[in-house]
Amino acid sequence: MQRKNEDDFLTIGPYAFRSRLFLGTGKYPSVDVQKRAIEASGAEVVTFAVRRVDLERREGVEGVSGVLEGVDLSRHRLLPNTAGARTAEEAIRLARLAKASGLSSMIKVEIVGDTRTLLPDPIETLKATEALVREGFIVLAYTSDDPVLAKRLEAVGAHAVMPGAAPIGTGLGILNPYALKLIVESVRVPVIVDAGLGAPSDVALALELGADAVLVNTAVAEAKDPVKMAEAMRHAVLAGRMAYRAGRMPKRAYASASSPMEGMIT
Amino acid sequence: MQRKNEDDFLTIGPYAFRSRLFLGTGKYPSVDVQKRAIEASGAEVVTFAVRRVDLERREGVEGVSGVLEGVDLSRHRLLPNTAGARTAEEAIRLARLAKASGLSSMIKVEIVGDTRTLLPDPIETLKATEALVREGFIVLAYTSDDPVLAKRLEAVGAHAVMPGAAPIGTGLGILNPYALKLIVESVRVPVIVDAGLGAPSDVALALELGADAVLVNTAVAEAKDPVKMAEAMRHAVLAGRMAYRAGRMPKRAYASASSPMEGMIT
Amino acid sequence: MQRKNEDDFLTIGPYAFRSRLFLGTGKYPSVDVQKRAIEASGAEVVTFAVRRVDLERREGVEGVSGVLEGVDLSRHRLLPNTAGARTAEEAIRLARLAKASGLSSMIKVEIVGDTRTLLPDPIETLKATEALVREGFIVLAYTSDDPVLAKRLEAVGAHAVMPGAAPIGTGLGILNPYALKLIVESVRVPVIVDAGLGAPSDVALALELGADAVLVNTAVAEAKDPVKMAEAMRHAVLAGRMAYRAGRMPKRAYASASSPMEGMIT
Amino acid sequence: MQRKNEDDFLTIGPYAFRSRLFLGTGKYPSVDVQKRAIEASGAEVVTFAVRRVDLERREGVEGVSGVLEGVDLSRHRLLPNTAGARTAEEAIRLARLAKASGLSSMIKVEIVGDTRTLLPDPIETLKATEALVREGFIVLAYTSDDPVLAKRLEAVGAHAVMPGAAPIGTGLGILNPYALKLIVESVRVPVIVDAGLGAPSDVALALELGADAVLVNTAVAEAKDPVKMAEAMRHAVLAGRMAYRAGRMPKRAYASASSPMEGMIT
Repeated sequence: MQRKNEDDFLTIGPYAFRSRLFLGTGKYPSVDVQKRAIEASGAEVVTFAVRRVDLERREGVEGVSGVLEGVDLSRHRLLPNTAGARTAEEAIRLARLAKASGLSSMIKVEIVGDTRTLLPDPIETLKATEALVREGFIVLAYTSDDPVLAKRLEAVGAHAVMPGAAPIGTGLGILNPYALKLIVESVRVPVIVDAGLGAPSDVALALELGADAVLVNTAVAEAKDPVKMAEAMRHAVLAGRMAYRAGRMPKRAYASASSPMEGMIT
Repeated sequence: MQRKNEDDFLTIGPYAFRSRLFLGTGKYPSVDVQKRAIEASGAEVVTFAVRRVDLERREGVEGVSGVLEGVDLSRHRLLPNTAGARTAEEAIRLARLAKASGLSSMIKVEIVGDTRTLLPDPIETLKATEALVREGFIVLAYTSDDPVLAKRLEAVGAHAVMPGAAPIGTGLGILNPYALKLIVESVRVPVIVDAGLGAPSDVALALELGADAVLVNTAVAEAKDPVKMAEAMRHAVLAGRMAYRAGRMPKRAYASASSPMEGMIT
Repeated sequence: MQRKNEDDFLTIGPYAFRSRLFLGTGKYPSVDVQKRAIEASGAEVVTFAVRRVDLERREGVEGVSGVLEGVDLSRHRLLPNTAGARTAEEAIRLARLAKASGLSSMIKVEIVGDTRTLLPDPIETLKATEALVREGFIVLAYTSDDPVLAKRLEAVGAHAVMPGAAPIGTGLGILNPYALKLIVESVRVPVIVDAGLGAPSDVALALELGADAVLVNTAVAEAKDPVKMAEAMRHAVLAGRMAYRAGRMPKRAYASASSPMEGMIT
Repeated sequence: MQRKNEDDFLTIGPYAFRSRLFLGTGKYPSVDVQKRAIEASGAEVVTFAVRRVDLERREGVEGVSGVLEGVDLSRHRLLPNTAGARTAEEAIRLARLAKASGLSSMIKVEIVGDTRTLLPDPIETLKATEALVREGFIVLAYTSDDPVLAKRLEAVGAHAVMPGAAPIGTGLGILNPYALKLIVESVRVPVIVDAGLGAPSDVALALELGADAVLVNTAVAEAKDPVKMAEAMRHAVLAGRMAYRAGRMPKRAYASASSPMEGMIT
């Protein structure tokens, strides 16, 4: 029933994806629930924290331990992230570790600048992004919703920018849709909204505003029924993307007038 | 792939529906686009203004003229509305007209109290609802987002209440999610959010808040590509309903703390 | 320093007020704090629940017991309200009681339709307003933010309408600024925003949107320092009213462009 | 009447201020209106763009040309800004120019990273701040609402951080109150909300959230009556600061319950 949208791929570096939903691993009640949630989500890209996976002892696809247990690596592309890094240096080390394991040449640069909110450090993120691009990584940079920083990340070669909607794990939704829209208008690389999305309505809104994809983790893993929520997210992404392409109606101040909302205090 | 949700019917009076999306007729660029949009939306209930359909000359299902042209009446249940009525009396007259035509025993009471915003008149709406329930109609009452009025409509026998998200045709989305949530908590009849929804994110949010269904018209009809937007809305309804049933994560003030947002000024 | 705004009186029925802040009584930590808060607020109108004052035993200004203890009746005009009434009949009875006491010919019609939220009942409120206007009262009607109901209240003679910003005692602020703006545009009698205002910013916004006055109670009485908060509210009212008269700048989508926010999804 | 708040000074480096309102120059209809607006605002600190003042030809207080004409330098402390700079280097050059003129040892670092929105460049801002602190300037850094960047600016010695509420000149208000609150909680130097504030309610909210001061320009200069709006802003600052110190009531989900809003989807 669902049309295949053959002409609507998400392209990041050399990769093309059909699904615009990235799913995080970890925080699920069980390995089995995580596995079924990934399945239900339709996600092609699955993220994980390098430090949480025992990469060294890995001896084959089935041998990956930790958060990747149960992930069918033949069907999903892995996006390792540098969560836990506090400096560019630490992030670069984690990225190299991930690459050496052979799991992926993509890396999500995630450098925390504040332990309470886990918000990213702009300076270290820019530094690490620049360095890793030079080393040949496909770099996706987790960043604040600062449009200028997004442009600078693009300028040093980031293959995608990942502005946060709200701090990780809060589920607060898109705190500043205006900033997100500015980022979408400012950069040409894919914009993937990451962190803080709490419900399908948040996900749909991100895509309606022109984001190219979203990454969710807690919103699925900590739902009462993570598998059903994963399926809900799958539909939300389809809804938001289709709406963006379909071109939404303008907002109007009044029912009978065709005037836009100019001058309204809302 | 999509599970059938066999146990998740929307029940209004004697009717049970699988789809939680009601679609309005009219405002489409052409009869053909309207027809394909209805198809793509998956809507089972299709609404129309009684005064806009030439009910008298109707000689059979295929003979319905006006906004219902092209609607396959074997597959869709019609929900006539009393748009254009300014008083309970006028609404009752239109309702009887609709019933006499044999098209439907459901009626959406819609009584405008203000020509600029087309907002409903609470007093006349309550009056008409009470009278039509007594006459045996299945009454769905278009109303403001006033929780007390919703309860009173239920008390006089309304089979569903249809609070507006925003004025008709504005696309402003849910102006007061708090009031909508109060209505959902206050009444036991289905709550169908009507009017003002402009995008799939609005639709998903309505269902996440616990609304039982939504009605959209302008958001689909005036999209640049109404057929694609109709499909987007179908996914949004699925996403929102699934999320409601899956139980969303709580909102939290901070990433690392498990404390809810108590005391936050947001 | 503060200009006297001689030409900017708030007129309700036969009364003219300089201050646009109405203050509620009750909920204060002590009679003395209430007294000093009223003083600091600059409010001329002080409201109280008829049922909470022992009107019968009153023997003079100094003899008023209950929540009015300490209120200097030579400097403040009293606005009794019918809080506790569940029907028009009960409200009318309380209004007559208030008038018989000689305290005031103004009455705030307040008829609760829901015990959890204390939201007003639209039908009973309209009924009581109509009846009390006929009996010669100066009627201020506490109502939802439904613009059509506000117009109907004006039509039956209400001297002012008092739409709630949010449910009483919640401090949630103006949940639907759009609806408030519609009310301001819809009626010619004074619009006094009542209930739910939690902070000076809420108060200023109400007046900026064109409301003629505000009523606060819990926001002052339950502040940690009620007297200081009362003074803050006094300044907020001045700020909001001056801004309304000064004519605020338009909102713009971008810094360097002069285009309004047309088409922005916010 | 207004208490003097003797114990509530705003301290920036070696300076202490009573007023928490900073006012920008420029954009006024006339020199006279600007002069009267500054007066009515009660602002002690007045900002101006270095590049817009003919510093070289200055021969005395009365001799300052450009945007500072009519500013009584005996009563106002000047805060020159580096508007127009695109790099740290340019900003440093402008700062030195300002200092050499003898007008002020304070400098607001303002380095634009995007011409359309005039949003600040985080990297260049941090660089310039660090350098100018080392040169002995009292540095106030105009920045995004990124809490991590605010902490880094403090770490290199910024005497105050000036997060934007919204892009300069938009009047959109505080787009992300949550981020502003995080900044207030994250740094110990004064937080002065700059840019985007459009009305007194925005100003009051900034101070209620714990900001130490605000800077407004367009909201006053482009009001229909700038002088009256300046006075409105003066009251708004008083209101917001008093409310912050008075301790606002908590927000509650329901009228009759004392439970906070935990779990509410708002």
